[in-house]
Amino acid sequence: MPTTDPPFLRRVASQDQFLEVVPREEANRRFHAHLTLAPLPAEHVPLSADLLGRVLAADVVAPLDVPQFDRSGVDGFAVRATDTSGATDHSPVTLRLNGEVLACGVAPVQEVLPGTATVIATGGMVPRGADAVVMVEHTDYREGPDGTPLVDIRKPASPGSFVAFAGSDIGRGEVVLRRGTVLTSRELGVLAALGLTRVGVVRRPRVAILSTGDELLAPGEPMRPGAVYDSNAAILAAAVAEAGGEPVPLGIARDRETEIAAKVEQGLEADMLVLSGGTSKGAGDISYRIIGGLGEPGIVVHGVAIKPGKPVALGVVRGKPVVLLPGFPTSAIFTFHEFVAPVIRALAGLKPAAADTVQATLPVRALSERGRAEYVMVSLVDTPAGLAAYPTAKGSGAVTSFAQADGFFCVPQGVEAVEAGTRVTVQRIGRDLEPASLSIIGSHCVGLDLLVGELAGQGIGVKLLNVGSMGGLAAARRGECDIAPIHLMDPRTGTYNTPFLAEGLTLARGYGRRQGIVFRKGDGRFEGRAAAEALAAALADPDCRMVNRNAGAGTRILLDRLLAGAKPPGYWAQAKSHNAVAAAVAQGRADWGMAIDTVAEPYGLGFLPVQPERYDFAIPADRLDRPSVRRFLDLLANASVRRRLTELGFDLTEDA
Amino acid sequence: MPTTDPPFLRRVASQDQFLEVVPREEANRRFHAHLTLAPLPAEHVPLSADLLGRVLAADVVAPLDVPQFDRSGVDGFAVRATDTSGATDHSPVTLRLNGEVLACGVAPVQEVLPGTATVIATGGMVPRGADAVVMVEHTDYREGPDGTPLVDIRKPASPGSFVAFAGSDIGRGEVVLRRGTVLTSRELGVLAALGLTRVGVVRRPRVAILSTGDELLAPGEPMRPGAVYDSNAAILAAAVAEAGGEPVPLGIARDRETEIAAKVEQGLEADMLVLSGGTSKGAGDISYRIIGGLGEPGIVVHGVAIKPGKPVALGVVRGKPVVLLPGFPTSAIFTFHEFVAPVIRALAGLKPAAADTVQATLPVRALSERGRAEYVMVSLVDTPAGLAAYPTAKGSGAVTSFAQADGFFCVPQGVEAVEAGTRVTVQRIGRDLEPASLSIIGSHCVGLDLLVGELAGQGIGVKLLNVGSMGGLAAARRGECDIAPIHLMDPRTGTYNTPFLAEGLTLARGYGRRQGIVFRKGDGRFEGRAAAEALAAALADPDCRMVNRNAGAGTRILLDRLLAGAKPPGYWAQAKSHNAVAAAVAQGRADWGMAIDTVAEPYGLGFLPVQPERYDFAIPADRLDRPSVRRFLDLLANASVRRRLTELGFDLTEDA
Repeated sequence: MPTTDPPFLRRVASQDQFLEVVPREEANRRFHAHLTLAPLPAEHVPLSADLLGRVLAADVVAPLDVPQFDRSGVDGFAVRATDTSGATDHSPVTLRLNGEVLACGVAPVQEVLPGTATVIATGGMVPRGADAVVMVEHTDYREGPDGTPLVDIRKPASPGSFVAFAGSDIGRGEVVLRRGTVLTSRELGVLAALGLTRVGVVRRPRVAILSTGDELLAPGEPMRPGAVYDSNAAILAAAVAEAGGEPVPLGIARDRETEIAAKVEQGLEADMLVLSGGTSKGAGDISYRIIGGLGEPGIVVHGVAIKPGKPVALGVVRGKPVVLLPGFPTSAIFTFHEFVAPVIRALAGLKPAAADTVQATLPVRALSERGRAEYVMVSLVDTPAGLAAYPTAKGSGAVTSFAQADGFFCVPQGVEAVEAGTRVTVQRIGRDLEPASLSIIGSHCVGLDLLVGELAGQGIGVKLLNVGSMGGLAAARRGECDIAPIHLMDPRTGTYNTPFLAEGLTLARGYGRRQGIVFRKGDGRFEGRAAAEALAAALADPDCRMVNRNAGAGTRILLDRLLAGAKPPGYWAQAKSHNAVAAAVAQGRADWGMAIDTVAEPYGLGFLPVQPERYDFAIPADRLDRPSVRRFLDLLANASVRRRLTELGFDLTEDA
Repeated sequence: MPTTDPPFLRRVASQDQFLEVVPREEANRRFHAHLTLAPLPAEHVPLSADLLGRVLAADVVAPLDVPQFDRSGVDGFAVRATDTSGATDHSPVTLRLNGEVLACGVAPVQEVLPGTATVIATGGMVPRGADAVVMVEHTDYREGPDGTPLVDIRKPASPGSFVAFAGSDIGRGEVVLRRGTVLTSRELGVLAALGLTRVGVVRRPRVAILSTGDELLAPGEPMRPGAVYDSNAAILAAAVAEAGGEPVPLGIARDRETEIAAKVEQGLEADMLVLSGGTSKGAGDISYRIIGGLGEPGIVVHGVAIKPGKPVALGVVRGKPVVLLPGFPTSAIFTFHEFVAPVIRALAGLKPAAADTVQATLPVRALSERGRAEYVMVSLVDTPAGLAAYPTAKGSGAVTSFAQADGFFCVPQGVEAVEAGTRVTVQRIGRDLEPASLSIIGSHCVGLDLLVGELAGQGIGVKLLNVGSMGGLAAARRGECDIAPIHLMDPRTGTYNTPFLAEGLTLARGYGRRQGIVFRKGDGRFEGRAAAEALAAALADPDCRMVNRNAGAGTRILLDRLLAGAKPPGYWAQAKSHNAVAAAVAQGRADWGMAIDTVAEPYGLGFLPVQPERYDFAIPADRLDRPSVRRFLDLLANASVRRRLTELGFDLTEDA
């Protein structure tokens, strides 16, 4: 009967003693003490767009002058400037033409002697004797009485006019590009102008990437219960490329000593090895033991006082950096940027990434773990009072925490909470913050997705934060959003939304949705019954588990009213979205829950309607005239959009 | 005898009537009236780092929940939260362990009934009945008297503790990424988490690039007189890639109708065709005629009132955009960014590039052509009073004008000059402006190149502007640079540099150089003579041509003193660098000039020493304590650096 796995527990217990958690700075100090971070040796790459973003390995000294010769900048006549002095439209200076035409690429033979001129094209080589070019527009060609070709110059030239002197662009021997320069189209043009065909650039560090874990599936493999698709391999490979490295994907290794050891050997052929996984302490042990057994110095840091990322391990094996990242996606990518990316950049010859920070106000209280520096992922919202930083609050296990964040701020070790209204310094990530044309904060709905998609098609960038109806209303009151989608019922009156409008907010009419009970088809406690009857049956059955919604959700208010104080099994399981409710029921972790009807079908669930509700849009009155808000309201009135919302199952009739 | 080419002159004259110069806005209006700029159709690319920078072709709707199940965030025990209420270290709650271990990837079988708990790993699937997980750190495992496995819980759990609910990261049916999103590592992680293996992205527009001109050489071909290496092909290919397109290089076509026509047909198989060349009006005609003959609407703009770039032609052939860029590199790349890049971005599904402007002060007067909007390339320098914008002033024929510029400002049509001290709006180009650690403005020297290279190796970014000694002194007086390298002789005293120091400037001792006469070896007028004797011989020979330096150069001051008022042939040819002087002499355009000895050898020239001179560094006193200035001064004192400067031919002895 006690099939429980004591070794697992022992591993868990014992590994805690391995973890010697050190501050971030100390971790970096120990890691770098064992690393040589000079740029890798040069490789010679043909001149092409493939060189974009590469780093010059050595100074480029011009092997020749550009231009190679004194070059004409216009079509016209090469002259001695002194010959043209005093020339005007009324009294032009007449010069005899020399018998050659200096088209592009033609080497002059004749010297321009006093009183003569030579025809020259733009880009042509200025001949000896000439020190200026007169534009053809300021001349007239004619033949003299004896047929001699002549040119009348109508404007005087000063010495050097329209002549680009040899070496004036690039001088032979000049250092024209410095080592360490990141190549763009502009530098490639300079290299081409020098006639170079290959360029010495720092070799990109090859970074082997290994995901470990029995639970991992490669994208494309069929899903099975308890499994997750490996997102780290894809994020890390791309992040390696973004940091200037060349990813070497090693795939997924199960939590087996031999399997991981073989992949580690393979990975050590690269310049750097990055493992992610071992979110379970027992499993993580295996990689740690293998790396630790490969010689000195081995693992130099195991545990850093940061959140996310505490279990990260840093090591050096055979002179190569080896990093064990946590398995949870946000922990993995966060510790990647903290410890791995700087090493890649250094090996690639790139300067450290410039810190890109902005000041923002925290609109809500943020809690932190006291013993660690905690990095809080935030979404930035433009408000009249400056930026507001909304914690994304999905946790380190979520791939979207990092992916959808605009940045993060740090709560120092020893601080337990940062109060709402505090100014924080946000380190931006990924890309420049594009100020959204329209910010929508509040309750989520599939119908809203449709509207936002239409706006995106019109080129309107939308910032969409799902924080629930109550959170949305608060954001609208604080002026942090343009639109707050809400579906809130006043329990006293049964009226939706309008009773919740604070001063300064107006309500745009949205559409009706249906809340109801979702259940697995064929469950006799629900199938074929009316909602009230089914609910009574469910409450009467002690084995019948519900799944609840989080406090602050409109659905939770409705549900609490319906339960009238009852707290059936599962009441404390608080799913955070309609989807999470449907998933819990579909997978048998609960037997019923409340959700809108549009989620029932995708999960193959039955649906018993309980309550039609209004999903409307609270809008600060002073935002109504913003063009993007107008466009949103126009969409709501648009016949084709309304038809599509109706097809999705929403109620757009007048009396909804 | 009249071998002059009248057809060339006729072409030049006649083509001016073709040019119908229109303002920039009108040019864009006409061009876009004939174009459909919707994003190209999708192609499906495997999930990999190759997707970085690609643009999503359609919204991505989540096909599954992430996580798929309620997931534990820690190693510990899945419990019913109500069972743990009141637990403390002193009075733990004891629960019976269920007989399964929920490692990662394991689907639970047993329900967690009241009074029981199940071992669960981080990432494990929370079983039915449980609504929270207790961390292993807050528990003790033991066996009961009958061997029953038990766990003592020492801390109460609240419902949902350490549980990530199914769909809380990504909900099935949620629009998780919008079409038009540019993919980074973060989005790729999200796509992998959804199990996707291929992603629909907008196909990159294929842009064919053709250079035309008899004078062009492909990089790697041997140089010949009058020829230039084709830099446009490389710049434009890379710029196409930077704008989100895929370059299709067509190489170089001579100025022959059949050759260009064949390449144009080939280019029209791509999505867009870009030609550059035809700097000579006659030659440019050919491309224009060919494109114009391929059907309606053909060429819709020929000539735009901008500088650089006036002769650009915009056309549409068989529904495809065709652009004829001028041949001069800066004109070509400037008009590319103006007319071509926006079209590529639109076809690639990218938003228009965000304008990136800064305010700066113009330190010198800038002249402009009255009839056109003139874009002046500038180099930005950080000063205590904000940014200063130095015109790079190399002209549109120079590849470095654009490559080395930090941005440009526009002098509107009708304005002839912008006065020094004017505030201008600078559009930045290429990349973020990295504020240089050290700015050096003044006279150029090969020895300075060595010092700057050393600083670059130490990670100090140097901004180096070669504006001559007088320009450097003025910049130092205005506080626009940290260091102004100068070599200026006071003609009255023969003393170098110190007489020129204004208040607030100090002089750091540099090194000695030798100015002298450069000439072609074997020229009897110079070979084997002393400088004074040679100069006398040169001035006596009316066929002996000199090449002068530009006004403001230290060398010019010396030369004028030497000539004592004489203005021999070539006096008005003003080369702008030591290299340009050496090139003019080496190529026979002049017979002698004055330059420093270090340029003679690379050009194979003879050298007659005239005057030792001091090359020193004027430094604003209030900059002396800047760390980067300190590092520069340290280098000047460094024995190994001094030895290398000596090897280059500079004089670092005490009495120099």
